[in-house]
Amino acid sequence: MEPRFTFGLWTVGNPGRDPFGGPTREPLDPVDSVRKLAELGAWGISLHDDDLVPWGTSLAERDLIMARFKAALEETGLGVGMATTNLFGHPAFKDGAFTSNDRAVRRAAIGKAMRSIDLGAELGAEVYVFWGGREGTEAAVAKDPRDALDRYREAIDVLSDYVVEQGYELRFAIEPKPNEPRGDIFLPTIGHALHFIGTLSRPEMVGVNPEVAHETMAGLSFVHGVGQALWAGKLFHIDLNAQRIGRYDQDFRFGAVGLKDAFFVVKLLEDAGYEGPRHFDARPLRVENEDGIWDFAAGCMRTYLALAEKARRFDADPEIQAALAETKVPELARPTVGGYSPEAVDALLAEQHDLAALATRGCRNERLDQLVIDLLLGLR
Amino acid sequence: MEPRFTFGLWTVGNPGRDPFGGPTREPLDPVDSVRKLAELGAWGISLHDDDLVPWGTSLAERDLIMARFKAALEETGLGVGMATTNLFGHPAFKDGAFTSNDRAVRRAAIGKAMRSIDLGAELGAEVYVFWGGREGTEAAVAKDPRDALDRYREAIDVLSDYVVEQGYELRFAIEPKPNEPRGDIFLPTIGHALHFIGTLSRPEMVGVNPEVAHETMAGLSFVHGVGQALWAGKLFHIDLNAQRIGRYDQDFRFGAVGLKDAFFVVKLLEDAGYEGPRHFDARPLRVENEDGIWDFAAGCMRTYLALAEKARRFDADPEIQAALAETKVPELARPTVGGYSPEAVDALLAEQHDLAALATRGCRNERLDQLVIDLLLGLR
Amino acid sequence: MEPRFTFGLWTVGNPGRDPFGGPTREPLDPVDSVRKLAELGAWGISLHDDDLVPWGTSLAERDLIMARFKAALEETGLGVGMATTNLFGHPAFKDGAFTSNDRAVRRAAIGKAMRSIDLGAELGAEVYVFWGGREGTEAAVAKDPRDALDRYREAIDVLSDYVVEQGYELRFAIEPKPNEPRGDIFLPTIGHALHFIGTLSRPEMVGVNPEVAHETMAGLSFVHGVGQALWAGKLFHIDLNAQRIGRYDQDFRFGAVGLKDAFFVVKLLEDAGYEGPRHFDARPLRVENEDGIWDFAAGCMRTYLALAEKARRFDADPEIQAALAETKVPELARPTVGGYSPEAVDALLAEQHDLAALATRGCRNERLDQLVIDLLLGLR
Amino acid sequence: MEPRFTFGLWTVGNPGRDPFGGPTREPLDPVDSVRKLAELGAWGISLHDDDLVPWGTSLAERDLIMARFKAALEETGLGVGMATTNLFGHPAFKDGAFTSNDRAVRRAAIGKAMRSIDLGAELGAEVYVFWGGREGTEAAVAKDPRDALDRYREAIDVLSDYVVEQGYELRFAIEPKPNEPRGDIFLPTIGHALHFIGTLSRPEMVGVNPEVAHETMAGLSFVHGVGQALWAGKLFHIDLNAQRIGRYDQDFRFGAVGLKDAFFVVKLLEDAGYEGPRHFDARPLRVENEDGIWDFAAGCMRTYLALAEKARRFDADPEIQAALAETKVPELARPTVGGYSPEAVDALLAEQHDLAALATRGCRNERLDQLVIDLLLGLR
Repeated sequence: MEPRFTFGLWTVGNPGRDPFGGPTREPLDPVDSVRKLAELGAWGISLHDDDLVPWGTSLAERDLIMARFKAALEETGLGVGMATTNLFGHPAFKDGAFTSNDRAVRRAAIGKAMRSIDLGAELGAEVYVFWGGREGTEAAVAKDPRDALDRYREAIDVLSDYVVEQGYELRFAIEPKPNEPRGDIFLPTIGHALHFIGTLSRPEMVGVNPEVAHETMAGLSFVHGVGQALWAGKLFHIDLNAQRIGRYDQDFRFGAVGLKDAFFVVKLLEDAGYEGPRHFDARPLRVENEDGIWDFAAGCMRTYLALAEKARRFDADPEIQAALAETKVPELARPTVGGYSPEAVDALLAEQHDLAALATRGCRNERLDQLVIDLLLGLR
Repeated sequence: MEPRFTFGLWTVGNPGRDPFGGPTREPLDPVDSVRKLAELGAWGISLHDDDLVPWGTSLAERDLIMARFKAALEETGLGVGMATTNLFGHPAFKDGAFTSNDRAVRRAAIGKAMRSIDLGAELGAEVYVFWGGREGTEAAVAKDPRDALDRYREAIDVLSDYVVEQGYELRFAIEPKPNEPRGDIFLPTIGHALHFIGTLSRPEMVGVNPEVAHETMAGLSFVHGVGQALWAGKLFHIDLNAQRIGRYDQDFRFGAVGLKDAFFVVKLLEDAGYEGPRHFDARPLRVENEDGIWDFAAGCMRTYLALAEKARRFDADPEIQAALAETKVPELARPTVGGYSPEAVDALLAEQHDLAALATRGCRNERLDQLVIDLLLGLR
Repeated sequence: MEPRFTFGLWTVGNPGRDPFGGPTREPLDPVDSVRKLAELGAWGISLHDDDLVPWGTSLAERDLIMARFKAALEETGLGVGMATTNLFGHPAFKDGAFTSNDRAVRRAAIGKAMRSIDLGAELGAEVYVFWGGREGTEAAVAKDPRDALDRYREAIDVLSDYVVEQGYELRFAIEPKPNEPRGDIFLPTIGHALHFIGTLSRPEMVGVNPEVAHETMAGLSFVHGVGQALWAGKLFHIDLNAQRIGRYDQDFRFGAVGLKDAFFVVKLLEDAGYEGPRHFDARPLRVENEDGIWDFAAGCMRTYLALAEKARRFDADPEIQAALAETKVPELARPTVGGYSPEAVDALLAEQHDLAALATRGCRNERLDQLVIDLLLGLR
Repeated sequence: MEPRFTFGLWTVGNPGRDPFGGPTREPLDPVDSVRKLAELGAWGISLHDDDLVPWGTSLAERDLIMARFKAALEETGLGVGMATTNLFGHPAFKDGAFTSNDRAVRRAAIGKAMRSIDLGAELGAEVYVFWGGREGTEAAVAKDPRDALDRYREAIDVLSDYVVEQGYELRFAIEPKPNEPRGDIFLPTIGHALHFIGTLSRPEMVGVNPEVAHETMAGLSFVHGVGQALWAGKLFHIDLNAQRIGRYDQDFRFGAVGLKDAFFVVKLLEDAGYEGPRHFDARPLRVENEDGIWDFAAGCMRTYLALAEKARRFDADPEIQAALAETKVPELARPTVGGYSPEAVDALLAEQHDLAALATRGCRNERLDQLVIDLLLGLR
């Protein structure tokens, strides 16, 4: 199956503002973005409510915007991979949306999310994402984290009931991030989000939407995090981009840094048969004008496809396969004990565990990893 | 209740070796450590199997060592807060213990853990910790993370069955760490471990043992992480020390860096009524000789007690309490919706959500946080 | 001498915009900021050209603005600690100012700096700061770093000549930063800037303006960096704030994180007799409204003064002084050889260097550091 | 000219010890390392005094070791790229060597360095490296950084005089590192070291030896740092390896992470005509046995050569060259003003600086960077 590529309207439409400078590009008309992305070979788009229908738009105008946008989708054949609520841009949400200390803000946030879910459902979005960018604090004294998690859970529970009651097909995906724009954000990593999901009233409806940049900011292995999400059956969506560890949120073009890491992510998605969108949540560099936007979008897809092709070669390369075997990679799939029983334990404890002998085996990781480098560099 | 302070035998006994230099101190006799810690006011100790009974010790010698050690515990009244298995020091475990690619190593690891659990139970340890320091990789190609999690789960499941079968009272606590000594370690954060626990066959028996240094290495908020563990009822043990973000594992004296963060951790433990040991998993600086070991141990406890006293003052300070109220900290404990119902949703959607008006409230976090600084500096 | 506290107009005037959300506060009138800062006890202010006179202002209007502002300074007695050029906000500087690949942009940047220097001189600024926030790149391919340094040097050389020709008293201070808003910024640390200064045509006129947040982002020791600047006689200005390692530029209230580090910075400035302004280049949290701005400003000064008082106690505390002596801190000021001579070398080589014996001394750093913690916590 | 590859004896000879576990390999005989490296195509080796002649070896034994080692060099034709002193391994240096608070330790360190310089000169080393791994502190209170820099400078000054007096041809290269094994190390970055060199009595004799891992730990751009060193004429040696940001010192095989960064470093070295050794200061993974050592060594050289070949293709690729021109990369080499003169300033100030117009140019960095990715992936 061909990978389905999607881009957020806010990604190609990003005007290039940053904390130290104003916008460098005009905002794009979402309909133009749809057409151009179709032309470049994308499968679909994703959006926040406000990307298409700014807060405060009248109902009449909303309907016009929606009709025109749906026409563009129909015309181009583009789908909607996911929709989400902007609960971070308006100053009302400065101290959180679902976890604002102000109950009235929390109620407004849930209301905005419901209306945005309606919009997402109307557009046929597959997944509905929650990125709690403002759910955090700079001053630990200002929120008890246990209360914050209670409120976060309450909001997701109410909204999942709402989806079911409305008869929508949507599944939810929670997007973790460790910090920025808040000093510390609740549900900072894939792991925290996966655990949180297990505490919800409808856990089966909720998965994660991990993002390369967000895990990488904290120096965590993205491929291990995505692996844990897949292992749990919880990879409902994914945000692809690039990022250096320990920096501001960079949202670089997919593959722009961390090529080997990007390769293993692509390989894992392809191996695991992940069927969701390959969603690029990245931004054209601020130094670009409109030409650069499309250089950027094309580059994201080009690199993904090149790495997917290399993943196929990896599987077909006899030397690589032999090296995997010598490193005993397949043996990790074999049970160690195969379930507890008194006999199994007795058998295990009766064995000689000659650690000194076991220590002599070399793991040949250097060789195997160099074969990957060779593959990436086009040397095999 | 007085906090119960414990120290690992390997902490005060650390000889000061590091990756670039040899030991600077003689190893301590565990019995001497017990006596000295008792003298300084600690409640107890913790240990790896090998700290007390080195690998390869004969059974006869093991019994002698154990008898002498138990006598020292009895003599001093010290307890055993936790026990754990050294599955990282021997070169056999260089590529993992429960997740080694080599099945024979995995079986040896489970066997070593069983024998070490016997030892922990014999000493009356409250908690049995699993720190999977070698469960990871430097080369992502060398392990499928999904297989690794399968094997990790299998091992914990087998060992929890073993504990139940043996009739031990032990609870398990998993200790996450993002990296070092491996390039990337599985179960890198509190969140990943909490999620993993939910997938086990005996989840009720297993909690987490978070460590300041481990979460802080990745720049994650330790107080938020501990908060999530408490929220989940899973804080079974805790490792206190100090660490700068983005560095090698420093294991500094508790409070040596990050005083404000340390204060909120102490406050959270005290507020939550956490009853487990306050365990210092830290190391005297390598520049110290034996005198410095006890400076270090006394300092850990001294700073904890000072911060706990400040936590009490925090609660008693009317200006701080007024500032908490103005910042609406207590309001975060109040339900936002109070459970889904069509009426509740209708009521919420019928409300005016005047974001502009909601945005005007100032959160006074600067003032509240400055009050904390004043409290810490002894100015109030 | 009382420390002279200054605040940037852009700091108290920061409207609370960030990469994910719009402003949360109205901009302040610079004249109001001057009055309020005077009331709170600040010595003075600092400014970018555009903070006071926005780009594109007519000359006539500029004169009106300047007259009104100078009147406010006179009325309140506030001084101007430093002035600087905004060479990062306008999209023309998106790819750098002095190191833009576009020569016309570089010339515009130098022109803007000259006019801004005129403005700074007219206001009596002591120091003129260069923060090259856009002098960098996200894509290493886009600039040869050697060319970039040539252009950077050329710009500073031309501008220092300009100052001398105009007869201004200004000294320059270069402000390093490792990244953000660019992926990598040239002159990323105090060290790189100090080296660069040595290559200028008027090195004596140029020093550094280090900032807590900027060095800390990269995990570098701010006190060591400031120490190297003082050692070189090059600390011409300083930006005080707070920051966690490995994160987006946080610009927190001075002392809000890293209390012990803040203490050593204050102590070093006071010990070294640094006479320049203590400049707070920080931002009130975005969750604040105007009340919070002044909480923030007052807190910066309050914490500085509290730490300066603790530095005095440090010097007066006999136990601390004895501990310093035992740790041989003063002995580090004693020459090791005292200058090369054949005799000195012969004497040194003739000595027994009994490393084993030298290794036995304990450095008692744990005790000394705990005394500092006690001092900070108000326990001594 | 073919690049000259060198390896430290301590790199291939690394036995695999780390802070949490014992060695996994036998130490190699230096003579065997020499032979094997020659076989793999290396140009030469480098060494610490203790790598070859352990501390405490008698003079007679030293002569035997040296004779045998020189014979191996002669037999194989291998050269000695650099030599250095081990001033970090022995516990006597636990609190620093040249900056120990203990003057007797400082004198011992200078003495050890002199004897080690003799050894390096005897072996014909081109460069003599100083890595001050222990020159730092975990407790800022324990050393005044200004005193530490005085002592550091004194030591280098005395040793450079010693070299001149002895008539050796050696040049010195200072190797910066931000932290590990000390909490904070003096001269933490290339920039700090370059500045320090300018304060020495024989600055012309001293350059830098930057290491990928050391700058990368702090998240600094290695290619920019090396660029500043080349710009200053101070790149006397270089340490190539790989490292993730914000972690313990990993010393991975060159290219193992950060392929694009590695490419730009290789390209810069090749473009700049750097003639020194390409020195791999890396370690085989601890999971390897001896086979893995040579996989590792071969991989370092293989990746360097592959990237150098890609650098040649980069120069020969017309589309890349056209993209460089459109991005105006060559224009950065053109002077902006061309030297100060009143006329030049008048001309500049007389220009219209239409920032709005200048802002419209797109920099096409996305396209240029994607061409680099394509080149790396073997797609062009």
